[in-house]
Amino acid sequence: MSYVKQWTKRLDKLNFRNMYGNDFFLTWEKTFEEVMATFTVADALRGLREDNVSTKIFDSGLGISLFRDNSTRTRFSFASACNLLGLEVQDLDEGKSQIAHGETVRETANMISFMADVIGIRDDMYIGKGNAYMHSVADAVREGYLDGVLEQCPTLVNLQCDIDHPTQCMADMNHIIHQFGGVENLKGKKVAMTWAYSPSYGKPLSVPQGVIGLFTRFGMDVHLAHPKGYEVMPEVEEVAKRNALASGCTFTKSNSMEEAFKDADIVYPKSWAPFAAMERRTKLYGDGDNEGIKALEKELLAQNANHKDWECTEKLMQSTRGGKALYLHCLPADISGVSCKEGEVAASVFDRYRVPLYKEASHKPYIIAAMIFLSKVKYPQKTLRELADRGKKRFFGVV
Amino acid sequence: MSYVKQWTKRLDKLNFRNMYGNDFFLTWEKTFEEVMATFTVADALRGLREDNVSTKIFDSGLGISLFRDNSTRTRFSFASACNLLGLEVQDLDEGKSQIAHGETVRETANMISFMADVIGIRDDMYIGKGNAYMHSVADAVREGYLDGVLEQCPTLVNLQCDIDHPTQCMADMNHIIHQFGGVENLKGKKVAMTWAYSPSYGKPLSVPQGVIGLFTRFGMDVHLAHPKGYEVMPEVEEVAKRNALASGCTFTKSNSMEEAFKDADIVYPKSWAPFAAMERRTKLYGDGDNEGIKALEKELLAQNANHKDWECTEKLMQSTRGGKALYLHCLPADISGVSCKEGEVAASVFDRYRVPLYKEASHKPYIIAAMIFLSKVKYPQKTLRELADRGKKRFFGVV
Amino acid sequence: MSYVKQWTKRLDKLNFRNMYGNDFFLTWEKTFEEVMATFTVADALRGLREDNVSTKIFDSGLGISLFRDNSTRTRFSFASACNLLGLEVQDLDEGKSQIAHGETVRETANMISFMADVIGIRDDMYIGKGNAYMHSVADAVREGYLDGVLEQCPTLVNLQCDIDHPTQCMADMNHIIHQFGGVENLKGKKVAMTWAYSPSYGKPLSVPQGVIGLFTRFGMDVHLAHPKGYEVMPEVEEVAKRNALASGCTFTKSNSMEEAFKDADIVYPKSWAPFAAMERRTKLYGDGDNEGIKALEKELLAQNANHKDWECTEKLMQSTRGGKALYLHCLPADISGVSCKEGEVAASVFDRYRVPLYKEASHKPYIIAAMIFLSKVKYPQKTLRELADRGKKRFFGVV
Repeated sequence: MSYVKQWTKRLDKLNFRNMYGNDFFLTWEKTFEEVMATFTVADALRGLREDNVSTKIFDSGLGISLFRDNSTRTRFSFASACNLLGLEVQDLDEGKSQIAHGETVRETANMISFMADVIGIRDDMYIGKGNAYMHSVADAVREGYLDGVLEQCPTLVNLQCDIDHPTQCMADMNHIIHQFGGVENLKGKKVAMTWAYSPSYGKPLSVPQGVIGLFTRFGMDVHLAHPKGYEVMPEVEEVAKRNALASGCTFTKSNSMEEAFKDADIVYPKSWAPFAAMERRTKLYGDGDNEGIKALEKELLAQNANHKDWECTEKLMQSTRGGKALYLHCLPADISGVSCKEGEVAASVFDRYRVPLYKEASHKPYIIAAMIFLSKVKYPQKTLRELADRGKKRFFGVV
Repeated sequence: MSYVKQWTKRLDKLNFRNMYGNDFFLTWEKTFEEVMATFTVADALRGLREDNVSTKIFDSGLGISLFRDNSTRTRFSFASACNLLGLEVQDLDEGKSQIAHGETVRETANMISFMADVIGIRDDMYIGKGNAYMHSVADAVREGYLDGVLEQCPTLVNLQCDIDHPTQCMADMNHIIHQFGGVENLKGKKVAMTWAYSPSYGKPLSVPQGVIGLFTRFGMDVHLAHPKGYEVMPEVEEVAKRNALASGCTFTKSNSMEEAFKDADIVYPKSWAPFAAMERRTKLYGDGDNEGIKALEKELLAQNANHKDWECTEKLMQSTRGGKALYLHCLPADISGVSCKEGEVAASVFDRYRVPLYKEASHKPYIIAAMIFLSKVKYPQKTLRELADRGKKRFFGVV
Repeated sequence: MSYVKQWTKRLDKLNFRNMYGNDFFLTWEKTFEEVMATFTVADALRGLREDNVSTKIFDSGLGISLFRDNSTRTRFSFASACNLLGLEVQDLDEGKSQIAHGETVRETANMISFMADVIGIRDDMYIGKGNAYMHSVADAVREGYLDGVLEQCPTLVNLQCDIDHPTQCMADMNHIIHQFGGVENLKGKKVAMTWAYSPSYGKPLSVPQGVIGLFTRFGMDVHLAHPKGYEVMPEVEEVAKRNALASGCTFTKSNSMEEAFKDADIVYPKSWAPFAAMERRTKLYGDGDNEGIKALEKELLAQNANHKDWECTEKLMQSTRGGKALYLHCLPADISGVSCKEGEVAASVFDRYRVPLYKEASHKPYIIAAMIFLSKVKYPQKTLRELADRGKKRFFGVV
């Protein structure tokens, strides 16, 4: 509980006033201090929970989730975050709703939000669509709030779009900070964000994009490597370049996994679909061209198969700094010989990093909770102190 | 908070004792004072929430929902109402249950209700079935309670049946009361409840029926207009007639949208299926006659298409009192040129009324909460005062 | 509230220390005193709820459910139990998750458990699989907890596996104890656990197995009867034999329903699939042999049809002790002439026992809650007293 002082002190030094009442779409739309405030509040909420202190700031209220793609960990992370703060999750299942009736986004967004304090959306399948959809929902509920339709304005949290996966990359980054003993130790570290082979098709680009867009802000040299043809969105590369310039580090691109891994402190080998192919797919879906979609899938799998050598092997790991780079993955990984014949990572590498990988994932619920907290709570330090002082137990049956 | 006195004073003047421990099926089964008490409690709960006062009267307990038809707004309204009062929603998904095993309604109803305080059901598809089903559930749990099987008797709330849609029509009516500045201002106002063209098939009759069954109790002249062949249930027309007689207003029927709109203060143009066709459909479903159902659908769409001129146009709106009638809809509406080529309402009309329409919908969660509250709480005024005095914040992080 | 003393006194005499921090898989893995402690805590939680005392020991936290088979009553019982203790249910729907991506059980189990206090699993379809799967989940989260991945170790509660159905059989047993006025009155009573005809296919063996594995511990003579070919798992029969020896009663097997019912004090006639057939089915599923599965289904239904005389008739009931044996069933039952043409039980027998049957089922939510409580709470007597002293109302609006 004495930690509370430590967290609030850290927050005192940061300017994050603009997070109050605002949504969380892309990490690079937030200032560095806002990003740091999110990490700090995430740690504070975790610390309070570990001390068996309730962090319920809501006595009632809904947290609405909308998953336009399958999800396990993000679904449970969002549910956990909402529950931790006192919100009840209500999933918007588009199959069970009247949305198919041709209802507008504006209308649906308002109709479900009369008692909603947060809306979390995952919509990562089609380039140019997911983030735009989230904005249309956020605009709709803000308008509804200003018009007096809604008594409160629900905060939108991006649970993965076509551009960024902020809750994932923020969890990854907070993991790094904890592993390296503080953000001050990251300066000059080398990160390899690389493509890796997977026998599956059409994985979103939001993770590599989110990583280069966020990690370049911490003074780390970020090396993005992928086979030719697996380019990510050029706009996000521009973001990474600007970030690198501003934080005094480098953002490098190559087509060599070896080059990227060489002396790296952190490696993040992960499969994704080529941006250009995703754009084609978006168009094919728009046209309802099922034959075209199938043909594209075949083509992409064949293209992937040309790059089976992009695997995170023991040999590659040995080439990293002291052979001990921190291995990251958003999970689930395609593990060679385990979840598939040939995949992103050798089983022995994955196994060695299993515990840190799971810890990496454990940050996500707290990151989401912090995003909600900072949007809802006007004076976070004060409220954190009050929660500690209130001293309500999370679990009553404790000794 | 000083408002609490105002609400409890209003309640003091009403006799609604019989709502305690009872269900909510049809508005006309409730006395006028009971209906008014529901509005008053709805407003009180809303006022308390707006003042950041928790209205959780349950510390634990389930609110069970059963939707036999797709639903967005009613689903979220029910979830919001339960959450507001402290109940956790548990959806009974008949697909995931053993109900298909030939289990009786009586048995299922008891098996899911050991810790249930409310059951909300939407079953509006087949004439003569939905309301009857709700009664069989309510009877089953009451019997279970009297037999000592259940420790509490769950309240049944009709979330739309074949006869009435009480949570919708009560929300509509509370909207009207707020828009017109009080129930005392409704006397002599003209309401046009009219059919409108829709390219979709088989919309329930519960909204027009609910409207004529409720609005005629407020001294308003209700005009029901529809093309020939789109009659509603005769029993409900009888209810409307009796209500009109008792409240000193008129209930008129015609086959002219123009006549209905002429000098109307309130218009509610909305599509529905003909009662006789719905009866035929119910029989076809009962016989499992899929060919017959398809043929009927085709026939009904063709029949609808004969009445595309039943659209709420700007011209029609101009014919209303001062050209400014309050436009109502339960949403989603079929908006011409937006959600369909030709529909119930012109886009410009709909757009002009968008904010009031959304406000109309915003009453529903509170109406549902009030129905639950009045069935569960023995001394509502006392409990409202105690909630205000308890002063538990809904949101803890407020300034 | 004075009852609290009574329950804690009973608990004082029992040694159940080993339940703290442990899972609940099979009843015979628990000592007799642990089983008795579970009944006592179930009654205590029920008593407190009936006295309108909140038993929420969790302020936040998730209760995760995973149903690999359809479920109504167990689903709602688990939801009720979690809600009663303050946990929010989050269902793991394998269809909506990424588990299909080939993710390991170990990984999924950890990923969903960051804020989970309990995991309830129903997996009863395949011999040799369900219980093993539950153990792999429990091992995974325990490892995650020890590795510092999880801040708390979720308790695993077996909601029905291929071997046992502990929450059902414990509810059945607590019902018997209440009906007979105490566990001391059960010595020497005769129980008939018999097969019964059903027109449906592949009902799990976990109920008869659970019954013979549990009831033999209470000094009751348990008679297991079924047609030839409907043997249960031999390992569980061994358990029943050992139990009978230890508790000084008998465990008898026969192929005669008449013999089993003769002078029985308790009868539990219920259909199940032959163990050997279930083993074949498991293999066929493993091989993906759909033709083989269909053929087996046909064969089993034909085999069942040879034993339509295994019905719990009035005549059979008359042969029980004083014609008044307590009739048990886990529900839903196949009632002749009601849910099927010919079934497990005559309609008049079922009807006469309807209320006690529903009461039997009413114990399940409390049994589950007690299992969770005893795993989570270190000093149950102390916590029960504190809950009573805290005096938080479950329902605030009470007189």
